[in-house]
Amino acid sequence: MNDDAQDAGRRNDDSSGAIPRYRATIEPSWIDYNGHLRDAFYGLIVSYAIDDVMDHLGLDAAYRARTACTLYTLELHLHYLHEVKSTDELDVETSVLDADHKRIHAGCRFTCPRVDGAVATADVMLMHVHQGEKVTSAAFPDEVDRALQSLKLSPGAAAAWGPTSRKIEIKRR
Amino acid sequence: MNDDAQDAGRRNDDSSGAIPRYRATIEPSWIDYNGHLRDAFYGLIVSYAIDDVMDHLGLDAAYRARTACTLYTLELHLHYLHEVKSTDELDVETSVLDADHKRIHAGCRFTCPRVDGAVATADVMLMHVHQGEKVTSAAFPDEVDRALQSLKLSPGAAAAWGPTSRKIEIKRR
Repeated sequence: MNDDAQDAGRRNDDSSGAIPRYRATIEPSWIDYNGHLRDAFYGLIVSYAIDDVMDHLGLDAAYRARTACTLYTLELHLHYLHEVKSTDELDVETSVLDADHKRIHAGCRFTCPRVDGAVATADVMLMHVHQGEKVTSAAFPDEVDRALQSLKLSPGAAAAWGPTSRKIEIKRR
Repeated sequence: MNDDAQDAGRRNDDSSGAIPRYRATIEPSWIDYNGHLRDAFYGLIVSYAIDDVMDHLGLDAAYRARTACTLYTLELHLHYLHEVKSTDELDVETSVLDADHKRIHAGCRFTCPRVDGAVATADVMLMHVHQGEKVTSAAFPDEVDRALQSLKLSPGAAAAWGPTSRKIEIKRR
């Protein structure tokens, strides 16, 4: 373990601008024939949580209308660790695992009081784009850039965040 | 490229038991403020497509009621390649990239007539489980095992299927 790894869970900067937790509302129709939250709806909860992050960063509806800029999802990985039931209180904590001038690699950690540790994690790559005649990638405004760099986990904390995404494969013993 | 790679797109066995394509119905509420299919609903389409695969394999509602066995999703990766609009006809072709006696690594390829190539891909790891007092992994029935081994792509075809899942990261030039 390097020194950075001891920073796990702590943000690079002070937490005054920290992203608020997202409290999910589990709709009855999201429970499947297996009696638990259907796999896809974890993705919808991530999608709503990221909407909240966009509002937090100032990439909200007014910004989108004014600039024709928004975030597109490039890739989404979901890791299912425990079943979630209709009665669970489900919270999502979003971390900025990495960011450059037009991309955000965000991690979402799902927790509920019934279970120790995360019940699911997700990591997602988002790109800031301009929706003109063609959709093109676009640099973040300076203030968003600064906010993201301030929220970004240290390399050690980002490495310790997990389970991290990986190639899916059946490993044979 | 090895010889196996030339098998890409062809199944190991004849196609008499091939998995039928899934035709997605895009609900108006699935279109987001960016004017395209919200990221999470690709996941719901995968989820429904996998339900169809379960029916095709005989892991249907009657089987689940009789045996208390079902499939759980362990991990889901979604790759967004082109925007999908409300008017698009969206089909999903599911391939068995790998399988052992209790797990399926499935690949879903999204296509629509407006766009050449895939508009999205997903890969998903599924585990066959028994829902008793505890949920435990369980071996597939023999006939499901045989069907899966017959559907499984050759190693070369599975390697050529893509884009394959991978670790999400911002690569710096």
